Amino acid sequence: MKVLIVYAHPEPRSFNGAMRDVAVDTLRGGGHEVIVSDLYAMGFNPVVGRGDFTRPANADVFRLAAEQRRAQDDGTYAKDIADEHEKLRWCDTLILQFPLFWFSLPAILKGWVDRVMGVGFAYGGSMWYENGGLRGRRAMLSLTTGGPPSIYGPRGRNGDIELILWPIQNGILRLVGFDVLPPFVAWCPARLSSEERVVYLKEFKERLLEIPETPPIFFHESGDYGEDNSLMPGVDPRPRFQRAGAVAGSR
Amino acid sequence: MKVLIVYAHPEPRSFNGAMRDVAVDTLRGGGHEVIVSDLYAMGFNPVVGRGDFTRPANADVFRLAAEQRRAQDDGTYAKDIADEHEKLRWCDTLILQFPLFWFSLPAILKGWVDRVMGVGFAYGGSMWYENGGLRGRRAMLSLTTGGPPSIYGPRGRNGDIELILWPIQNGILRLVGFDVLPPFVAWCPARLSSEERVVYLKEFKERLLEIPETPPIFFHESGDYGEDNSLMPGVDPRPRFQRAGAVAGSR
Repeated sequence: MKVLIVYAHPEPRSFNGAMRDVAVDTLRGGGHEVIVSDLYAMGFNPVVGRGDFTRPANADVFRLAAEQRRAQDDGTYAKDIADEHEKLRWCDTLILQFPLFWFSLPAILKGWVDRVMGVGFAYGGSMWYENGGLRGRRAMLSLTTGGPPSIYGPRGRNGDIELILWPIQNGILRLVGFDVLPPFVAWCPARLSSEERVVYLKEFKERLLEIPETPPIFFHESGDYGEDNSLMPGVDPRPRFQRAGAVAGSR
Repeated sequence: MKVLIVYAHPEPRSFNGAMRDVAVDTLRGGGHEVIVSDLYAMGFNPVVGRGDFTRPANADVFRLAAEQRRAQDDGTYAKDIADEHEKLRWCDTLILQFPLFWFSLPAILKGWVDRVMGVGFAYGGSMWYENGGLRGRRAMLSLTTGGPPSIYGPRGRNGDIELILWPIQNGILRLVGFDVLPPFVAWCPARLSSEERVVYLKEFKERLLEIPETPPIFFHESGDYGEDNSLMPGVDPRPRFQRAGAVAGSR
């Protein structure tokens, strides 16, 4: 595999940092190539704006999609974005390693998505979902939470982790074409003993090495949707949130 | 009302910019006080890190929750965060005005949440959900989308807008104590005519002036949950995603 790990944690000595290290060592030890985008170490700028482009398509009014389309055609993306594009084109496997902040990606990682997943590069026109710009690649979320599984269950107060991850797994990863593998969720590592953390890291190693054989999560394909992009009559919507195996790292 | 508008769009001449202007004019015209945090104009830094604090509780290892607790006690939050805390304490109504980027908040606004909604200030211990640090205030999302309502319907390809907003409305706004009003969703303004946009802004004005009488969205309260933070047996989970009136700006 050619694996791009996008890692977003401010403290290298965190459990997220340990997971990143385990991922790099395990994958390289297994004969795979690995590149890490360590967003904090890179000082990655997460804010969409005129700085995303080396010259504006419209210097007067900033319209993101138009600027992205033009930058894609002309090669006028800023270097930090162009570098990430190159890594994404290179990889066959993307891992996002992050702590769940406010039920979503930390801002530095959200901004990586906002800026890097441009129109013309990652999606646009008929290039979306199974035909997205990064199709043929797989992606996996690897995250830590601050709460235990029960609060993220189907009846949990925070809401079902599957629903919480839907905007990321469907709305980002699947929309740009990735086959999305079940996420690895490390529940509440801050409250675990060192021994329990070691067990988690061992489970994570196993998941990493199983990636090539891991079936992706089910998503409906374009043929299931009508012209209004709603599921056609008779198509069962439930498999979109099927839990079987979807949170494989969970306890 | 004392209204804080947190506004996140890179282009003042966007429809989001027009919505912000309409909100300020309408609310002030109605005798209300308004403060705007224009995150792009402020150059707001959205990245959680050591810079959030004027001196570290632990200079060696960065642990966000511990740093936030200590900063709350000692008044050692960085000025940009302390300023937002003051605005939040002042307001009785919060409006987040933003374009839906990748099914979520733009990074600059996500980072406002990540950095400002600190442990001890907004939540922590028993201070969460209806007992959150910002209880007694109301909040409302006001957003634009790039797609039409059908793709965000219960059977839509992007997923039900209610599910997409759940991590924000429940996981951020409700968790820190706000009464959450139905969102105002401006569907796909980029594809509208000038006349249609004017109609949207008129509808938005009406919604703004109705805020004091608008009933909040239903959320279960603490008594509905057991010790594991799951809904107790017999409690109906469905009202959490009841659609009635939940997306009042929709067409």
